[in-house]
Amino acid sequence: MIAEHHILECRTQGNDHIIDLTAQVQAAITDSGVHTGQAALLVHGSTASLTTLEFEPGLVEHDIAAALEHLAPQDARYAHEATWNDDNGHSHVRASLIGPSLALPIVDGVVPLGTWQQIVLVDSDTRPRRRTVHLSVMGVG
Amino acid sequence: MIAEHHILECRTQGNDHIIDLTAQVQAAITDSGVHTGQAALLVHGSTASLTTLEFEPGLVEHDIAAALEHLAPQDARYAHEATWNDDNGHSHVRASLIGPSLALPIVDGVVPLGTWQQIVLVDSDTRPRRRTVHLSVMGVG
Amino acid sequence: MIAEHHILECRTQGNDHIIDLTAQVQAAITDSGVHTGQAALLVHGSTASLTTLEFEPGLVEHDIAAALEHLAPQDARYAHEATWNDDNGHSHVRASLIGPSLALPIVDGVVPLGTWQQIVLVDSDTRPRRRTVHLSVMGVG
Repeated sequence: MIAEHHILECRTQGNDHIIDLTAQVQAAITDSGVHTGQAALLVHGSTASLTTLEFEPGLVEHDIAAALEHLAPQDARYAHEATWNDDNGHSHVRASLIGPSLALPIVDGVVPLGTWQQIVLVDSDTRPRRRTVHLSVMGVG
Repeated sequence: MIAEHHILECRTQGNDHIIDLTAQVQAAITDSGVHTGQAALLVHGSTASLTTLEFEPGLVEHDIAAALEHLAPQDARYAHEATWNDDNGHSHVRASLIGPSLALPIVDGVVPLGTWQQIVLVDSDTRPRRRTVHLSVMGVG
Repeated sequence: MIAEHHILECRTQGNDHIIDLTAQVQAAITDSGVHTGQAALLVHGSTASLTTLEFEPGLVEHDIAAALEHLAPQDARYAHEATWNDDNGHSHVRASLIGPSLALPIVDGVVPLGTWQQIVLVDSDTRPRRRTVHLSVMGVG
């Protein structure tokens, strides 16, 4: 039985910048040698989130951000901002509602995604950030 | 240690059709012989999602769809549709915000759900689809 | 290989009361002796959900509840309520959209969260509840 921890890193521009993590996740799983098993993926921090998405410019640069702006508008009043003199109340709300983690089956050494389905990080903070994602890989070789 | 992969399949009508997968998930876990462990469930494709829900007609046929229509209206303008001459921008947004995966504990050979809590697939695409869900089961017998 | 099941319990006030589960989750993982592995966390019931959040009063007492009220207003009409003569249609919708589970890597015996990132339960039901969360821990010691 194999149990490994991998760290994935990326740089974002914030403001709902969406990064495709699929290749990094798959490379770590390949490196682990797990053939059948599962991976747990968790983003470090409370203003970014993980999901899957067809990674094409319409959705990535416009449509997801528009839905998030509708869900938690940037210029609404947030108690978080009043308390901390901060500007990212909407970032926290967006990230918490999307969610910070993914549970991924590993089948024949790969994550069985659709052709138009990529693993993505959504950075809802208001400034460029370096982001860390923790990947746990478990299974049999 | 047991590590297995199972494929679950269903047919949907699209348009936020919700399918109860609980019996299929539980049957695969029973078949695996895992007594204590965990399962990772991932839907294949970027216009469907997984969550849990009380599977009764009010929520399944009306309330979830109404909330999704509020979250990402079908007739809003989506860059995805302009680019691809497609009609399912809202489908992608809805699926990404709900999320594609579930992490499920296995306790005494079963997923410990509430009495009124079922594992469901939400198909937000705009047409009937066949859907595949990947289930990884790991644990001890 | 270690595979264990732990039950976490808490009392809530309902109405989107948010409970910090981080210490309970971490204590169970420490107790299991798992050094490298993963945990699956699932809330029991269909009107509560799990996510991560900066656990500070602005977000916990105001901002998340405001976003959920926007997403699925309490006084909207729900078919669930008409059918069951119930008052918690919005509770079900909110919980299903946030999601019931988290997949958590375990690294050096801990869940690698950010400093301002806590594991939380959101109870969207309309009355005080006792809540049960199932935690599966797997990995190597």
